[in-house]
Amino acid sequence: VSERAKLVRVLSGEVVEPPPVWIMRQAGRYLPEYRKTREKAGSFLDLCFTPELAAEVTLQPVRRFDLDAAILFSDILVIPLALGQSVRFEEGQGPVLSPAPIDSVALDPSRVAEKLAPIFETVRLTRAVLPRDKALIGFCGAPWTVATYMIAGRGSAEHLPARRLALEEPARFQALIDMIVDASVDYLTGQIDAGADIVKIFDSWAGVLDAEGFERWAITPVRSIVERVKAMHPRVPIIGFPRGAGARVGAFARETGVDGVAIDWTLPMRDACELVPASMALQGNLDPLRLVVGGAALDAGVDSILRVMRGRPHIFNLGHGITPDTPVENVARLVARVRGKVAD
Amino acid sequence: VSERAKLVRVLSGEVVEPPPVWIMRQAGRYLPEYRKTREKAGSFLDLCFTPELAAEVTLQPVRRFDLDAAILFSDILVIPLALGQSVRFEEGQGPVLSPAPIDSVALDPSRVAEKLAPIFETVRLTRAVLPRDKALIGFCGAPWTVATYMIAGRGSAEHLPARRLALEEPARFQALIDMIVDASVDYLTGQIDAGADIVKIFDSWAGVLDAEGFERWAITPVRSIVERVKAMHPRVPIIGFPRGAGARVGAFARETGVDGVAIDWTLPMRDACELVPASMALQGNLDPLRLVVGGAALDAGVDSILRVMRGRPHIFNLGHGITPDTPVENVARLVARVRGKVAD
Repeated sequence: VSERAKLVRVLSGEVVEPPPVWIMRQAGRYLPEYRKTREKAGSFLDLCFTPELAAEVTLQPVRRFDLDAAILFSDILVIPLALGQSVRFEEGQGPVLSPAPIDSVALDPSRVAEKLAPIFETVRLTRAVLPRDKALIGFCGAPWTVATYMIAGRGSAEHLPARRLALEEPARFQALIDMIVDASVDYLTGQIDAGADIVKIFDSWAGVLDAEGFERWAITPVRSIVERVKAMHPRVPIIGFPRGAGARVGAFARETGVDGVAIDWTLPMRDACELVPASMALQGNLDPLRLVVGGAALDAGVDSILRVMRGRPHIFNLGHGITPDTPVENVARLVARVRGKVAD
Repeated sequence: VSERAKLVRVLSGEVVEPPPVWIMRQAGRYLPEYRKTREKAGSFLDLCFTPELAAEVTLQPVRRFDLDAAILFSDILVIPLALGQSVRFEEGQGPVLSPAPIDSVALDPSRVAEKLAPIFETVRLTRAVLPRDKALIGFCGAPWTVATYMIAGRGSAEHLPARRLALEEPARFQALIDMIVDASVDYLTGQIDAGADIVKIFDSWAGVLDAEGFERWAITPVRSIVERVKAMHPRVPIIGFPRGAGARVGAFARETGVDGVAIDWTLPMRDACELVPASMALQGNLDPLRLVVGGAALDAGVDSILRVMRGRPHIFNLGHGITPDTPVENVARLVARVRGKVAD
């Protein structure tokens, strides 16, 4: 029996020092080897649905840096795709979806697992070669965030279309959310069956909801997913990432059943420590811009987080995805600094 | 001697029930009479700098609705303008400023009060006709938020130009912030001398800063402004609005010296009550979208805030500015509901 990955230990409440580290969107455009594979694949979605290539980019950052985890290369919008809404990614514009499924597109929840089979194959291929001491993280988007794209048909400032529908026609919106919950459970359990050690639920747009909206559309659907996944896989830890939730990470941590909470860079870890039970793992939360700028700004940011988190179960990470303009050498510097080997 | 306005009483820690109410951006495009005056004035900045017309639009919402305060009609970008940076507002595009003052534009802090004299005249004209029981609120942008526009030359997604400068060249950024602090003190004291009963400091983009950035660029400059304004006008209450601050409203409330904190719609008032000392006034925080949608969504949002805030010093308001698509009748419904007169 192999030793449990450090991330899994931290997510069960163990304090590991120095903390394990990985980087959100670590398989991405800042890496020359990623850009090369991406070119070979064709479109972004082609890359997601070609298991050999997706496994390759999933593994690239772990080969280059001393990271404790790989995260499946995929996208949160494969769920609308699997439900029958068309999705394409336009260069420099982000995702474009076919018209909102509320009125014009019939969604078909019966073929989700079948349509997402190539992604499960990516997980299998990756897990087969990833060292056992490194965790493989699967993921999905949280229902609220996925719904914002499904309703607006794209990324949208302040996510007014979904917020408006949720206020004006809560029953119809609830039906859509329920369907996304079902699909997400299938998606996550498929990833776990294929070898994911941990899963993470990204609620990138949780922050725009008001008090009632956050309870109903951010907390409740995530709790449903967590309950149902844990009923089948009680030992697989789940990380929640309610981005922009601020003080509401407290309620999110207490009410959803997740094992760990990822903290964005706008909530000081000191505040997160007060809001979240001390036994619960926290992940985060360096400002990705410090990784772009490097030097003293990077070191000070890393040190400050390590100082605050000493003695707590902690996974070092950014507070949001790494950006394409990040110098590769800054990533190496970050990892070394977290490991306590000061680079310069 | 006239009775003190309800807002002033709440800001000194008194519980007033039902709470006084006003609406951020209440003098704005959702009002037909505003659109008429705006047309007469020419550009948006012409309107800000024509005291008779600016006073007229400041008074319009108070004439139409049963509100407890008027807020000066002006803009946070009159500060860069007064410092010598050019500012214009493009229809549908927002503000456009001349290149960043760090390298190419010399700022002149010596003529701020002179250049802003028309705005002080607006305050005088408004105060002369506004009933004494209604507060006149003056305001400025917080230095961080004003700097984001000055550096980027416009509104910018995630405010990367200013964040980057603050990380890469903190000393130069500090010099700019210091200059904005000085100008803001002149601006606020000019408004108070002209008759403003309360002033409010809008930090619309405080939310994008990380832990260290928030302390240095959001809290410290606001504390400087508050200290210096209070040294001259100890009895004029100051409201701070660190939008997007989430759990950091606790530190903001304790460390800046403001008398009240405005809460955006993404922080539940219940959380705000736990983060902020019980004697401190809280303002907010209805989601402006509930005011657009109206009906049950509006009523439920209003009732929930009133319920949570019972027994605390509270000023009812939105969690952000009213939007142009808001039906006028929903505003009347909101005010009546806060007053305890159920409309419909």
